[in-house]
Amino acid sequence: MLELPQEVQIYEVGPRDGLQNEPAPVPTAVKVELIDRLTAAGFPYVEVSSFVHPRWIPQLGDAEQVFEQIQRPAGVRLGALVPNMRGMERAREAGVDTVALFVSASETHNRKNLNRSIDESLANIAEVLADLEPGTWTRGYVSMVFGCPYEGDVPVADVARVATALLDLGVDQISLGDTVGTGDPRSVRDRMAALAPDLPLERVALHFHDTRGTALANIVAGLDAGVRVFDGAIGGLGGCPYAPGASGNVATEDLVQMLDAMGVSTGVDLEALVDAAAFIEEKLKKRLPGRYLRAARGQYCTA
Amino acid sequence: MLELPQEVQIYEVGPRDGLQNEPAPVPTAVKVELIDRLTAAGFPYVEVSSFVHPRWIPQLGDAEQVFEQIQRPAGVRLGALVPNMRGMERAREAGVDTVALFVSASETHNRKNLNRSIDESLANIAEVLADLEPGTWTRGYVSMVFGCPYEGDVPVADVARVATALLDLGVDQISLGDTVGTGDPRSVRDRMAALAPDLPLERVALHFHDTRGTALANIVAGLDAGVRVFDGAIGGLGGCPYAPGASGNVATEDLVQMLDAMGVSTGVDLEALVDAAAFIEEKLKKRLPGRYLRAARGQYCTA
Repeated sequence: MLELPQEVQIYEVGPRDGLQNEPAPVPTAVKVELIDRLTAAGFPYVEVSSFVHPRWIPQLGDAEQVFEQIQRPAGVRLGALVPNMRGMERAREAGVDTVALFVSASETHNRKNLNRSIDESLANIAEVLADLEPGTWTRGYVSMVFGCPYEGDVPVADVARVATALLDLGVDQISLGDTVGTGDPRSVRDRMAALAPDLPLERVALHFHDTRGTALANIVAGLDAGVRVFDGAIGGLGGCPYAPGASGNVATEDLVQMLDAMGVSTGVDLEALVDAAAFIEEKLKKRLPGRYLRAARGQYCTA
Repeated sequence: MLELPQEVQIYEVGPRDGLQNEPAPVPTAVKVELIDRLTAAGFPYVEVSSFVHPRWIPQLGDAEQVFEQIQRPAGVRLGALVPNMRGMERAREAGVDTVALFVSASETHNRKNLNRSIDESLANIAEVLADLEPGTWTRGYVSMVFGCPYEGDVPVADVARVATALLDLGVDQISLGDTVGTGDPRSVRDRMAALAPDLPLERVALHFHDTRGTALANIVAGLDAGVRVFDGAIGGLGGCPYAPGASGNVATEDLVQMLDAMGVSTGVDLEALVDAAAFIEEKLKKRLPGRYLRAARGQYCTA
C-alpha cells in the first residue's frame, strides 16, 4: 500500500534548467516577471539562473541583471548554478546566497558535459565550497542517476559515491537527477532503497525529466520511498533541442495538481502556477509540454 | 515499498475509445491497418469499434466493414462496444464474440451520456447479456469512477454498487474508468482498497484518461493495489474536442515502455507499437499526445 506524506516541498528550477535550453533568447524582463510570479506562488526555492560562462550558455548570460531586478521575498531561496570559481565570484557580486553545484554519476557524461573527470569536478566543488560566504545554502545536483545515454546503466554504487562525497564536502542538499528521463518507478524504488543507508533522505531531492512521460509516476515511487523534496519546471520548460516535443523537467503545475488532488500539501498556489505557465508559454510562442495547463484552460471531456 | 507484479495485461482501446473522438473521419482502410498492426503487436484484447447508432458516433459508423476486413489472429479478443439490443444484432451479424458494455457510476453522467438512469442501463445490459451467443466474452465499463464533471466526487459505494451489479449479471471483466482524468494515485489506492472486498481484483481492469498527465502515476498505484489489467490507446488517441491538446486515454506505448523499463512483462512489442503510433499520427495529420513516440524518434537530451 502506497505510503504518502502529509506534505512535501517543490523546488522550481524552470528559470534555470528550463530556459537554458530555449533556442530563442528570452528577454531579461520576461525572466524577471516569470521569477517574480514563481517566488510569489509559494515555493521555498526558485533556481533563478546560472553563472556558467555565457559562451557555453548564452541563454542565461544575463544572470547578474536578473538577480538585480527580481523581487527577493522572505522565505524563498533564490538559487544560482555555479560551475567554478569564476562563476562563484560573479554570483557573490550578484548577492547570491544559495548556490547549486553540478556533478554527474556517469564518468563519460561528466567529461562530455563538464570537460573533466568526476573526481576533478568534486575537487572543483570543494574549492567553491571552501570559498563560500558563511550562511550560504548549497544544493548538489547529481545527474544521470537513473541511466546515461553514453554509459547506459549507471551503477548505484557510483551514485552513492558521488552523492556521499557531496554531503561529506558539506553540501546541504542533494538533488538526484533523472537527466534523460529513463528512470521508472521500479528503479526509483530500488535505487532509493539502495541509497537510503548512505544518504539521509531528509537531505535528498529528486529531479525528473519527463522525456518518456514517466516523471509523475517516478515521483509517486519517490514519495513512497520517503523522499520529501521534488524539482519541477513551470510548464515543463526545458524541452531538448535534440528531441523535438520531448519535455524537459516535469511540469511543476502538473506535479502540484497531482499532489493537491492527493491531499499532499505543497504550500504552492496552483492557480498562480497555471497563470505563470500561461505567461511564459505566450512569451515563448510555443506550446509547452505540461498537461494541466491545457486541462485547466479547456473543458472536461465527458465522452 | 511499491509492490510490483511480474506481468500484466494491456488492453488496447484506441480504435474505439480513441477514434470515436476524432473530428475528422478516418477511412476504413486506415482503421483496418491500425487494428491489424495492434493485433499483431501482441495484445490480448483490441477494442475494434462500436455498434452505437452512427447518428450518435458517425466516426465508427463503419463497424461492420472494419470487422469484415480485419485480420483475426488467434489469441486476440476483438471487442466491440454494444449499447443496446439493436447494436447487439449488428454485432452478432458481424461475427463479434467479445462485447463491451457501458454504464456510469454517476447518475447525472449516465443520463446525459446514455439518456437513461443507471438502473435502466443495468436492465438494458441484462437484456443484452441474456441474448448473447454462448461463449461470448464480456467486459463492463464503469465510467466516472474517480470523479465526474457534473457531480464532482462520486461515492465509492456507487462504484461498488454498479460494478458488483455488472459482475452479478455475468460480465466477465469490469473496467473501472477515470473518464475525465481526475483520478490521482491516492484516490486509486483508497478506492481499490475500498472496492477489493466486493470486487475480485482478477476481474478488474483500470482505464485512465491522461487529461492531467497523471495516468501513468495512477497505474503505478493500481499495480501496487494488485490490479493486473490496464487499458491504453495507441498514441494517446482520444483527445477531447472540448479540451484542445488534452489527451484521451493513456498512450499505450508510454505505458508499455514504462512497464518494460520496470521489468513487468506485457507480451506487447514496444517497437511495433511505436510504429503503429507513428502510422496513425501521420494519417490523422496531427501530433498525438503520447510522449514516448517523440522520445523514440528523437535523440536523448544530455543537457
